[in-house]
Amino acid sequence: MDGQSGYAQRVTKNRERPPVALEIDAIFHPHSIAVVGASANPDTPGYDYVRSLQEFGYKGRIYPVNPKGGEILGLPAFASLRDISGGADYVISCIPNAYILDLVRDCAAAGVKALQLFTGRFSETGRADDAALEDGLRETAADAGVRLIGPNCMGLLYPELGISFRTDMSRKPGPIGFLSQSGNLLFELTHFGESRGLRFSKAISYGNALDLNECAFLEYFADDAETRVVGAYIEGVRDGRAFIQALGRAASKKPTVVLKGGRTDAGGRTAVSHTAALAGSAAVWDAAVRQSGAIRVETVEELIDTLIASAYMKRPVESNPADRSSRPRLAMVGAGGGRSVLTADLCEELGLLVPPLPNDVEAKVAEKAPDLAGWVTNPVDQSILAGSGLGGGQVLEWLDESPDIDMLVGNIGEPWAFGRPNGEAIVRRVTERFIEVAAKTKKPFAVVLGPSDYGHEDRWRFISEARERLVEAGVAVFPSVERAVRTLARLAG
Amino acid sequence: MDGQSGYAQRVTKNRERPPVALEIDAIFHPHSIAVVGASANPDTPGYDYVRSLQEFGYKGRIYPVNPKGGEILGLPAFASLRDISGGADYVISCIPNAYILDLVRDCAAAGVKALQLFTGRFSETGRADDAALEDGLRETAADAGVRLIGPNCMGLLYPELGISFRTDMSRKPGPIGFLSQSGNLLFELTHFGESRGLRFSKAISYGNALDLNECAFLEYFADDAETRVVGAYIEGVRDGRAFIQALGRAASKKPTVVLKGGRTDAGGRTAVSHTAALAGSAAVWDAAVRQSGAIRVETVEELIDTLIASAYMKRPVESNPADRSSRPRLAMVGAGGGRSVLTADLCEELGLLVPPLPNDVEAKVAEKAPDLAGWVTNPVDQSILAGSGLGGGQVLEWLDESPDIDMLVGNIGEPWAFGRPNGEAIVRRVTERFIEVAAKTKKPFAVVLGPSDYGHEDRWRFISEARERLVEAGVAVFPSVERAVRTLARLAG
Repeated sequence: MDGQSGYAQRVTKNRERPPVALEIDAIFHPHSIAVVGASANPDTPGYDYVRSLQEFGYKGRIYPVNPKGGEILGLPAFASLRDISGGADYVISCIPNAYILDLVRDCAAAGVKALQLFTGRFSETGRADDAALEDGLRETAADAGVRLIGPNCMGLLYPELGISFRTDMSRKPGPIGFLSQSGNLLFELTHFGESRGLRFSKAISYGNALDLNECAFLEYFADDAETRVVGAYIEGVRDGRAFIQALGRAASKKPTVVLKGGRTDAGGRTAVSHTAALAGSAAVWDAAVRQSGAIRVETVEELIDTLIASAYMKRPVESNPADRSSRPRLAMVGAGGGRSVLTADLCEELGLLVPPLPNDVEAKVAEKAPDLAGWVTNPVDQSILAGSGLGGGQVLEWLDESPDIDMLVGNIGEPWAFGRPNGEAIVRRVTERFIEVAAKTKKPFAVVLGPSDYGHEDRWRFISEARERLVEAGVAVFPSVERAVRTLARLAG
Repeated sequence: MDGQSGYAQRVTKNRERPPVALEIDAIFHPHSIAVVGASANPDTPGYDYVRSLQEFGYKGRIYPVNPKGGEILGLPAFASLRDISGGADYVISCIPNAYILDLVRDCAAAGVKALQLFTGRFSETGRADDAALEDGLRETAADAGVRLIGPNCMGLLYPELGISFRTDMSRKPGPIGFLSQSGNLLFELTHFGESRGLRFSKAISYGNALDLNECAFLEYFADDAETRVVGAYIEGVRDGRAFIQALGRAASKKPTVVLKGGRTDAGGRTAVSHTAALAGSAAVWDAAVRQSGAIRVETVEELIDTLIASAYMKRPVESNPADRSSRPRLAMVGAGGGRSVLTADLCEELGLLVPPLPNDVEAKVAEKAPDLAGWVTNPVDQSILAGSGLGGGQVLEWLDESPDIDMLVGNIGEPWAFGRPNGEAIVRRVTERFIEVAAKTKKPFAVVLGPSDYGHEDRWRFISEARERLVEAGVAVFPSVERAVRTLARLAG
């Protein structure tokens, strides 16, 4: 469908830094940005784009464009892109689709190299005239030498340089480079993941992928020095071979997490109305992702957890699935009896081993707390330790030192702690102890805290502060034991 | 192992209200409670029990018992149970296991009918002398005519009557009767579920189940007028036939949700050290639960979600798994494009159908918003509706009225709303609209809001208030679309 994009042909020429990656890098570093369809009405995207650039501290020039002229958010508005002397490096379009071909011609006349279209209602509506307009858009842009992001997308987020599409995205730069066919998904990732450290180096919402597409963005993030982890939400790809190549290259350089939308009939139908994506065969997709070495997830919760783990946790040692004894051996401390039992069950059901306490740890327990020897097991039931003088943090350290344990879970256990008179002190002490272990361990270590959405404001604040402390210390935090364990199992493959 | 408990023999005699259920009802309504091992030290269970009864407003007499006498929490302490004139209806033991046989004899002498043992370190330690002590406890109690709850457990929670074992349990009575071999699990359920309306009519933490056991408590909740939904966390049962009978009876009367600990080798090993439970065969267990008509869950998150759904949502119509077209048809409103695609995928993968908009709804959309006809589908992509004059709440009502949709999900969508200048007004409006639909629908309807554990205090407060409003209105609220959809699929069978 878009062999014309020219990307797939060029990508193979320079394996080190593909030309398209250099183009995208230039797009991410504009000296000036024009917002066409800028508005003084706060409930419009034309307002959001200008306001976001201002609030995020974008240092380049911001040019609002609106046929009515006047002033928008304190800036003089231009009636047309052609009126801006020297043009603009990057243009954001919020105007109705009927005016889009004129805008592309204006871009060409003004020397603009890249145009991002919030503007939608192209092939995703399923109507012939809208699809024809999209064809015209692609051809006009290609003739004019204007690269497109979108249409039907939010565009670029680059906190470091003050570029955003909405004011409520996170202003703190982070390790994750993300490409997404859904803009709303980026809101959700920020909203639900930011407090756990899910922050972006750069992110791209690219909608219908008419020109620059998933392959180009994967190539870009593969080499981007500000990106340590690559994440993607993809509904459809147009050139399967180029995609597998680009995904494989990214995954060979950085942990790369892929969420596919449109895996089923109903999902594929919905994707057509969303980004006009042709979802393709789920089986082919699965095989491609597996070959590439990327990590496949299926829900937004899994995506958030896996990005957090990839960014902040040591990676598991590769296991050999053919050899049962090579399955990763998990140990957990900090949970009560029932939770310990259930965690052992869930781990085994997910293919992780939960062995009894290794001999070296057992010997240390017997020395320090003879009363508990032969009773306490793994997962380490916190209520058995209570009053013994032996703390969960100490046992965790021993488990970390043991050669017979491969991965660790530390449960803060605030539901129990809050029932104690010194509950906050307990949570604080356990938090600091876990941070110490996280700093020195070479094993994947997941800490469980929260969720904190219960109805006590003081507890919410206290838990939020403890989580912030963990995140600042670079610890991977999960809101439940279930999600921690599922993530460990996923990464262990 | 405990044929001696005599329960299994008696239960079949009276199918209407088994004698053991009457005994338990009496235990839940004591006129006086003695706490043996009561303490003035706030960091002890002997303090917690007394303080909880005071704070929860227990109206009967509270007798602290401590050999040192004196005063505990403003109450005169008795040196021995035998010193209390008229005895006590119910006794809670926090003393070390070495004194337990004497205490049982004291109970008998004081005419006590029921003894609950926080006291642990019996067969769960795996040591022969502790197991022998447990045998002695059972025999002595049986001889003395004293019923036992535990040992190794937290005991009774009955907010309506002011009975609790810790001050941080919920004081609001609710519809859920819960029996648990883990006390800590009850803390977790309250901590993580209370803000969603997970509140107990009565709950029982019963540990090692030496005398009164899961069968007795199931029989009790089956008929308890204050209990609309029964939940259970069980690690092991000693009389499989009696259990199947009791579970089946409960499930035939009320939604009954069962979480089994010890489904795997590692889980079973951990259960032995927790409650000395013999976990039994997972396959036999599964078959038993399935036959009984109870709902089986595997994690605490699933347990919380399923209890909430059972308490506050209409039940799905039974489907016929042999007939594909009879799979429940789900519709969702309120999510962005990517989330809508992913929800359709997850539903289909879980066995729920996500059909396109039914014809009757399509016709109404075409009339109200001709521009969207043939474009908007199910799940209803909120961003397509934006600016059309057609709201998600209206489409939800049409979907509720359609005979071709069986279950509904309403996503509040606060990550999107908070980026709008009138975000709070949007969330409020959508919340009220969903409450209207929930009030009149005959279909299962899951509302998604949260989680609210991000780092903005104002948002946390706002979301918490919106959730409270939904819960007060009796709506089933889920913290993610994933969990809502998984719960709907689970209940649909």
